[in-house]
Amino acid sequence: MSEGSGRRKAVRISDVAAAAGVSKALVSYALNDRPGVKESTRARIVETARTMGWTPSLRARSLSVSRAYAIGLVFQKSPEALASDQYFTSLMAGLQSVLSTSQYSLVTEVVDTPEAESAAYRRLARDGRVDGMVVVDLRRDDARFALVREAGLAFASLGRPPGPTTMPVLVYDEEPAITDVVDHLVSLGHRRIAQVVGPQGNASAQVRRELYQRLFRARGIDDSHWIESDYTAAGGRAATARLLDAEAHPTAIVYSNDLMAVAGMSAAISRGLRVPGDISIVGWDDITLSQYLHPALSTVSQHPFDDGRIAARLLLEAIGGREFVEPVRTPDPVFVPRESSGPAPL
Amino acid sequence: MSEGSGRRKAVRISDVAAAAGVSKALVSYALNDRPGVKESTRARIVETARTMGWTPSLRARSLSVSRAYAIGLVFQKSPEALASDQYFTSLMAGLQSVLSTSQYSLVTEVVDTPEAESAAYRRLARDGRVDGMVVVDLRRDDARFALVREAGLAFASLGRPPGPTTMPVLVYDEEPAITDVVDHLVSLGHRRIAQVVGPQGNASAQVRRELYQRLFRARGIDDSHWIESDYTAAGGRAATARLLDAEAHPTAIVYSNDLMAVAGMSAAISRGLRVPGDISIVGWDDITLSQYLHPALSTVSQHPFDDGRIAARLLLEAIGGREFVEPVRTPDPVFVPRESSGPAPL
Repeated sequence: MSEGSGRRKAVRISDVAAAAGVSKALVSYALNDRPGVKESTRARIVETARTMGWTPSLRARSLSVSRAYAIGLVFQKSPEALASDQYFTSLMAGLQSVLSTSQYSLVTEVVDTPEAESAAYRRLARDGRVDGMVVVDLRRDDARFALVREAGLAFASLGRPPGPTTMPVLVYDEEPAITDVVDHLVSLGHRRIAQVVGPQGNASAQVRRELYQRLFRARGIDDSHWIESDYTAAGGRAATARLLDAEAHPTAIVYSNDLMAVAGMSAAISRGLRVPGDISIVGWDDITLSQYLHPALSTVSQHPFDDGRIAARLLLEAIGGREFVEPVRTPDPVFVPRESSGPAPL
Repeated sequence: MSEGSGRRKAVRISDVAAAAGVSKALVSYALNDRPGVKESTRARIVETARTMGWTPSLRARSLSVSRAYAIGLVFQKSPEALASDQYFTSLMAGLQSVLSTSQYSLVTEVVDTPEAESAAYRRLARDGRVDGMVVVDLRRDDARFALVREAGLAFASLGRPPGPTTMPVLVYDEEPAITDVVDHLVSLGHRRIAQVVGPQGNASAQVRRELYQRLFRARGIDDSHWIESDYTAAGGRAATARLLDAEAHPTAIVYSNDLMAVAGMSAAISRGLRVPGDISIVGWDDITLSQYLHPALSTVSQHPFDDGRIAARLLLEAIGGREFVEPVRTPDPVFVPRESSGPAPL
């Protein structure tokens, strides 16, 4: 079958350019409302295209300059905190694994206040630098969703945004993994269990702390032993020292990330405590080093690489026009027991 | 003093636009050699500007659409490797610390072959997405420098590029730190010292291995004990197992990164060896966790955050027109002795 046989031949950008006596690039610019084209020129090109019966095809669109061919990711955290945060590096790596094969770039910014974050969103949208955003680390009354809607940008949200949306929303459930951690420790005889938690202004840190508390109470365990820390190794070490200074110190500590857990484990060992003989340690994240420590760290494995991969794929589909009616379920975190948790001391 | 008094008034883009009967944006595009302008139109605009005595001013340049307000960073490594590589996360964080306050974005791509890397460079340049590139992980016969020159992009290079350049080149010297490591181990009585090194196709991995060997030989130490590995924790553990299986195993092992060193240290401890009583361990990188391990890891502290910060600042200056005649010296790596290295066993 010869190409186009039996069908009317489609009008191409190059046909319009020839008819209007301008370059193909200028036609693309004009038809896609991009800057750099004089208004009278744009009007002439649009009229020529209309007269010739040109219609935007998906392929033509994807070949035109109307796309930024980039998605944006704005982190609100200190550059130093970003450097030691493997969760976000893995998320980025997952995004890149899809974008790199789709000719898309990732535009990142790091800001330190919600105001700077809003400004970064506005700037990326105004300058046409990105076709969509990946929204992470949701907060209560999150201003970002209004900003992306206003800018007409697509987005993928890791967590449920406040209102209804047709954009992809990724969700997972932490309760099965936390239930497994609590059952593991309780079945090993632990009754005094403490938490070292992340900053409670962060929605997910608060949800996780409350979930642990509810599951402790359901098993008759005192739920009042928790210390708020800051996800840093230094914070984890300091919080652990406070817990171990107490007269009847806990026999198990669960941490909201591995960085704090590793520092806490070393703090305990430095005091002459055996892990897990005297105290059990459980982290959260399953960073690469967790399984290469001695003792290997019991922790909860999240899937930031998969989340990034899925978010990028769905965001590209949303940019292409797909609408999402339901949140998309991504892999739940999984408890990975290793050597740092064991029977409670007698 | 009134504006422009006593001076000939400068010809502005808007003057050229009015004279040529086109938009200001189109003049900017034409004068800055951007795509989307028909060749005959460009020639006419350039001629008009020349006749009127127009000269590019720094301010006009920065206000024109000629800037992408972004710099690019292309990593050639697997997304998985990127996720556990704190060196690159810290470098990015350092870049961001400057870019975020300069309204610049960072455009990143991750590719897995040199061919894909070249394609990414060409695409970023062709689409006018970036004003400059940060070039890292230099190789022999590195194709990237020809690509950025061809594209007319500014760049900052971490390491010396093959030919002369007026772009910023950042250099540091590893020899003082390596000398300190070797003297430290030799003075503690170590005579059997092995290296676990990075992939030898990587220029810096080879230079570092040879530097260690030269300094060993200068002190009468056998320089033949080295194993090539891959910078991963699994690779570090496997290489360590091979070294410890030998009849007269080394009393000290130096690693080319901390990920391999931490895994190697755990492998030794798991075999019942004491660190540093039976074997001393020295890493390279000083990742956040190094000082929070038990024993705390002796390692070499690099300054990727500072390198990123300095590279971004100088690259912005290069984009603004500054020329660099000499390489810029950044902080040298520093040996940080901690608990994992001590006297050789008797």
